[in-house]
Amino acid sequence: MGMVGGGKDAFIGAIHRIAANMDGLIELSCGALSIHPEIAKESAEMLFLPKDRTYLSYEEMISNESKMPADKRIDFITIVTPNFAHFGPAMMALENGFNVVVEKPMTFTLEEAKALQKKVDETGLQLCLTHTYSGYPMIKQARDMVQSGVLGKPRKIVVEYLQGWLSKLSEREGNKGAAWRTDPSKSGKAGCMGDIGTHAAHLAEYVSGLKITQLCANLNVVVPGRMLDDDGNVLLRFENDVNGVLVASQIAAGEENNLKLKIYGEKGGIEWAQQEPNTLLVKWLDEPAQILRAGSNYPGILSKAAIDNCRTPGGHPEGYLEAFGNIYKNFAHTLMAKLEGKTATKEMLDFPKVDEGVRGMAFIENVVASSQSNEKWINFKV
Amino acid sequence: MGMVGGGKDAFIGAIHRIAANMDGLIELSCGALSIHPEIAKESAEMLFLPKDRTYLSYEEMISNESKMPADKRIDFITIVTPNFAHFGPAMMALENGFNVVVEKPMTFTLEEAKALQKKVDETGLQLCLTHTYSGYPMIKQARDMVQSGVLGKPRKIVVEYLQGWLSKLSEREGNKGAAWRTDPSKSGKAGCMGDIGTHAAHLAEYVSGLKITQLCANLNVVVPGRMLDDDGNVLLRFENDVNGVLVASQIAAGEENNLKLKIYGEKGGIEWAQQEPNTLLVKWLDEPAQILRAGSNYPGILSKAAIDNCRTPGGHPEGYLEAFGNIYKNFAHTLMAKLEGKTATKEMLDFPKVDEGVRGMAFIENVVASSQSNEKWINFKV
Amino acid sequence: MGMVGGGKDAFIGAIHRIAANMDGLIELSCGALSIHPEIAKESAEMLFLPKDRTYLSYEEMISNESKMPADKRIDFITIVTPNFAHFGPAMMALENGFNVVVEKPMTFTLEEAKALQKKVDETGLQLCLTHTYSGYPMIKQARDMVQSGVLGKPRKIVVEYLQGWLSKLSEREGNKGAAWRTDPSKSGKAGCMGDIGTHAAHLAEYVSGLKITQLCANLNVVVPGRMLDDDGNVLLRFENDVNGVLVASQIAAGEENNLKLKIYGEKGGIEWAQQEPNTLLVKWLDEPAQILRAGSNYPGILSKAAIDNCRTPGGHPEGYLEAFGNIYKNFAHTLMAKLEGKTATKEMLDFPKVDEGVRGMAFIENVVASSQSNEKWINFKV
Amino acid sequence: MGMVGGGKDAFIGAIHRIAANMDGLIELSCGALSIHPEIAKESAEMLFLPKDRTYLSYEEMISNESKMPADKRIDFITIVTPNFAHFGPAMMALENGFNVVVEKPMTFTLEEAKALQKKVDETGLQLCLTHTYSGYPMIKQARDMVQSGVLGKPRKIVVEYLQGWLSKLSEREGNKGAAWRTDPSKSGKAGCMGDIGTHAAHLAEYVSGLKITQLCANLNVVVPGRMLDDDGNVLLRFENDVNGVLVASQIAAGEENNLKLKIYGEKGGIEWAQQEPNTLLVKWLDEPAQILRAGSNYPGILSKAAIDNCRTPGGHPEGYLEAFGNIYKNFAHTLMAKLEGKTATKEMLDFPKVDEGVRGMAFIENVVASSQSNEKWINFKV
Repeated sequence: MGMVGGGKDAFIGAIHRIAANMDGLIELSCGALSIHPEIAKESAEMLFLPKDRTYLSYEEMISNESKMPADKRIDFITIVTPNFAHFGPAMMALENGFNVVVEKPMTFTLEEAKALQKKVDETGLQLCLTHTYSGYPMIKQARDMVQSGVLGKPRKIVVEYLQGWLSKLSEREGNKGAAWRTDPSKSGKAGCMGDIGTHAAHLAEYVSGLKITQLCANLNVVVPGRMLDDDGNVLLRFENDVNGVLVASQIAAGEENNLKLKIYGEKGGIEWAQQEPNTLLVKWLDEPAQILRAGSNYPGILSKAAIDNCRTPGGHPEGYLEAFGNIYKNFAHTLMAKLEGKTATKEMLDFPKVDEGVRGMAFIENVVASSQSNEKWINFKV
Repeated sequence: MGMVGGGKDAFIGAIHRIAANMDGLIELSCGALSIHPEIAKESAEMLFLPKDRTYLSYEEMISNESKMPADKRIDFITIVTPNFAHFGPAMMALENGFNVVVEKPMTFTLEEAKALQKKVDETGLQLCLTHTYSGYPMIKQARDMVQSGVLGKPRKIVVEYLQGWLSKLSEREGNKGAAWRTDPSKSGKAGCMGDIGTHAAHLAEYVSGLKITQLCANLNVVVPGRMLDDDGNVLLRFENDVNGVLVASQIAAGEENNLKLKIYGEKGGIEWAQQEPNTLLVKWLDEPAQILRAGSNYPGILSKAAIDNCRTPGGHPEGYLEAFGNIYKNFAHTLMAKLEGKTATKEMLDFPKVDEGVRGMAFIENVVASSQSNEKWINFKV
Repeated sequence: MGMVGGGKDAFIGAIHRIAANMDGLIELSCGALSIHPEIAKESAEMLFLPKDRTYLSYEEMISNESKMPADKRIDFITIVTPNFAHFGPAMMALENGFNVVVEKPMTFTLEEAKALQKKVDETGLQLCLTHTYSGYPMIKQARDMVQSGVLGKPRKIVVEYLQGWLSKLSEREGNKGAAWRTDPSKSGKAGCMGDIGTHAAHLAEYVSGLKITQLCANLNVVVPGRMLDDDGNVLLRFENDVNGVLVASQIAAGEENNLKLKIYGEKGGIEWAQQEPNTLLVKWLDEPAQILRAGSNYPGILSKAAIDNCRTPGGHPEGYLEAFGNIYKNFAHTLMAKLEGKTATKEMLDFPKVDEGVRGMAFIENVVASSQSNEKWINFKV
Repeated sequence: MGMVGGGKDAFIGAIHRIAANMDGLIELSCGALSIHPEIAKESAEMLFLPKDRTYLSYEEMISNESKMPADKRIDFITIVTPNFAHFGPAMMALENGFNVVVEKPMTFTLEEAKALQKKVDETGLQLCLTHTYSGYPMIKQARDMVQSGVLGKPRKIVVEYLQGWLSKLSEREGNKGAAWRTDPSKSGKAGCMGDIGTHAAHLAEYVSGLKITQLCANLNVVVPGRMLDDDGNVLLRFENDVNGVLVASQIAAGEENNLKLKIYGEKGGIEWAQQEPNTLLVKWLDEPAQILRAGSNYPGILSKAAIDNCRTPGGHPEGYLEAFGNIYKNFAHTLMAKLEGKTATKEMLDFPKVDEGVRGMAFIENVVASSQSNEKWINFKV
């Protein structure tokens, strides 16, 4: 693995390294860790990277690595830069035969996303999008229960993603993460909806297996002086006559990272909360609700995917890093299968891909368009 | 107190009697408990009502009682019939000098609601609307915290009211409560939105002290064959630039009576859930969240109203019946003050009134109109 | 009903009145509400008692009432005085043909308890002990599940009752409730163990259906200057080789009224917490835990007693007052059956009785003896 | 790092590797992964260990590694064998200059533990005991709050560790983990008390900073046919007049890994539950309880140790593996400081050590002795 971005003090870069490293399948071999040469070098040193694989730009990295012998060069690059700087290294990597892991939202514009999609289709390479929350075992369980029909035909989806960390104008107070996320030239057309709304929308589609077909959005700039939405509420319509609501906010003072999903079917519903991710509440129409727990031993109840994506037995909580690790683990197994000339299984291929990246960018386009429109419903265009 | 409706087997009538009775201030003295004479008589007997005050119609009851001497006749009537049968007895009671307690939604149409409002204004009598949930002590505490400004200027309101009991076409399977609630000729223009959406909207306005100014609604008939909405999602705009969402559903399979309210201000937020009503979660921007508990002894923290509406010390849970009892208790104290020639205090007057009934009916009108419209936002008209 | 004790400002007297009143079966007809004549009179007036049935002593009350015609005189007396003043009125009531409701612990000494037991046996009158917590519907459900064997043979019982209100020497700071509870001349041999330990022990025996056979107690006076135990831990052995632990404390700072019961059998266990009493958690060896909720509609799952002791449907929380009301309701139905010459059903008779009062007093004797002993286990003597 | 035990299919070995690997500070370089040569080799291959550092016994490993040049040989060995096989490799490692990480309980007997302690003292090497639960950030926070005195003088400690996985005689049904844990020749004098009771006792002492001075134990063999205790309850006395209770069970059917700690002081208390480890509930005598969350930003509230032992911001849950990783991380930093000639800081040295291992073995000795004794209290002897 080679990393683009993620120099010291970058939150998400460190997370990617722990996650990639978790199962002993992936090694960080090189990096272009910062656009500031000094930081790039220092960070590489702290990570024990060899000098000759410490790069000062992604172009240098991809170009150099592509000249190395197959058994020495990296298999994929991981891109953990701000949104506007995803497309360049991703496209160049694909063009040079490298697989890609990239942070969400996948690109800066929908057009870029489609271009990546085209390139992935052409090359047959893998692009993995780190919609971390889909890596949780109980999210897999929820998906498998909803899609298997045990809850009956789905009817309603409520997804809520509430944070409070942008309650003040932190972008003016030296908070770097806040600064680029609220800057349209770095973040893209949307702020909150791009940063966390896309996670919520992805999770709703991932678990339900249903695509959003129409939406009606109300995006808000709540904190005066901010340049992008920091809050929003969206009415949703999904395939198969399922209705829904998506609420996302970064000004919900006192909330940490409160992502909750509820899906109701004819016979029952599921409820999941990211902050206590090892529990899946399953509610039933005329029976007591059940508490399903990751790693537990319930013969015949937990799905294969739920079991495969656990490392510990019930009661030994796994968390965000393990969910992230699952994305990397499945991606790595997919690459390994290819290297060994095998066909990747459905389980290996269970990570978010370029098509989901395109839908994420389309989600941003559509909610922004809807919010600016006087029309009630707009069709979800990709 | 005289009761209209509420014969044996009627759920809400029994609830009203326990609630009214709870604090030893109110006595059931007469009733027109059913339109079926046999049931009316049997029910009255079970409640130990005297024969001469067992009535077969509300007209008979009001007419008879109004002829009794002041110290013997009832002070108010309580109306617990289906929606379409609220207006008649309420108007006749007011016209004959009786105060009124009436179930929500207040009437069948907005016009009826306005007529009652006019009559209340003319007569100076009290009309109390049983929006039970506003009777909970921790709702009073939430209101007092939000409105006092300790959480900063309000920014966002999320209210959710989820039930699952109409997941099937129960109205065709002998469920009487389901039958009239889903019948437009008995329930009114809305089903779910009238039955529980009005509670959610009331609670949001009651706690925030802010009125809904615009909304964008999506009402759904989810169960095939049903005649009224059984589910809906509404984008809200309140006064003072506060945005919000209201979700109400009676097809959320597995949910009981899951009413939740979250309000976020600049500095913190409150979260309350009806099913565990003695707890108010208070979240803060840069401090640990606090768990406020009804009846507890926190010098300087619980508001006077929160304290006054508790009967037991912390850790001795009060519930739905006590919240209901608080509505009656405050109403009774208001009437007693009047009888004693005193001015009712703010605390006594803390029960939902005719104006809130009018807003509730307007809410129904507006969400139905919005749901049928292609316009995004409609102004909340009363 | 006639009440002994419970004048204005007495916490538990007011609770008894609400509870007795809840279901419209019982009326407060007379009272000897205080040993202070002025308070007795004032309190009676506030409760609308007639002057001629406002008594200044229990002796006067019992003597007068027993001379009244059968259709006018009270059916039972309720004793809500401090522990040391239970026996006198209880015995005199029984001797004069009145049934009795009495607060726990039943008496001041075990001898008194046995004397009452003897008198109850002789007279065939009912004595009801207000172990409130056994009135909760989900406690009935727990009992019925444990005793029906669906959880397999019981193996282990953990009961914990934690309060914090005696963390300071409040008895010296004008807290009347604290004053008599910590005074051996009013409370009896034990403080915390008498006040709340007896509740915990009763609940464990009530739900499991198993009697404590041996115990090993460690009682502590944690707050310097206090005269009775304010904290204690007890190892328990029950019939049928079941082991257990009882923890009770009134110096657990920050706890309100935190009574929790866990019972484990071969196949699963139950967990119940008084502060959220409408939920019963049922855990299973190889299946997901279930959340049983009071009032909910699970065909075949909630027991008859659990259903009978609810007033509201699932999601409309009932609380402490309703649990208390259940004790009175079942007691009242038992008396009514007798008056009507019928046999009381098992359901009517489901309230704590004199035998449980004797066991409670024996519990106090035994834990105090054990705590003072160097022997490890002492046999539970009655 | 070289590993002794932990071949494929061994649960705890895999956990150790992920934990050691988590922060990129430690590399698995060699192993004697099984006493079965085939499994040892296969497991080593799966972990990409070089052939020449794949050993068939710990003796071979230690002997070989000690002959390698300082910059190539391992810094420490990790012992993840069953209890009876801890002492041999630990002692040999220390004698050959290697630091040691060892699973708890530290040894098979107290004598062995003392011998290791002596050797550690002589050599100045580090021995790290993996009492994982002390690695959680909110446990550090609890410790720092209790020991700093903000909760007032400690008064009472309640620790409970409930599992259900030994509810059946699983040791006879092919469960290897059950087999050695219930076999006195492999596990030692105690079963449940050694396996999880020691964790509970360690956590109580670690957080309170107080040592157990006396105890009164009741160990039970609940499942017929089992050779060691599978359940137990212990009354505790700590230094400074603090009383406590420890409950441990492996037959609490339906429990996963339910470790809970409550400590009460004069002014407030803490409550922590391992299954939701990112939350610390802090209760106060006359103020609302607070919810402290790992990783959150509360200026001045979270302690340095709580912050240092987090990798993610609030709301991104960390779990068991991260707590385990913290033990390894602090241990690694301690070794690195030494290598660099620096003095390890208090924060680096925050991992369980040989003295705690000795106390753990003494705990086993003492509870077993107490359980067999008729004396009530026995002094905690080391």
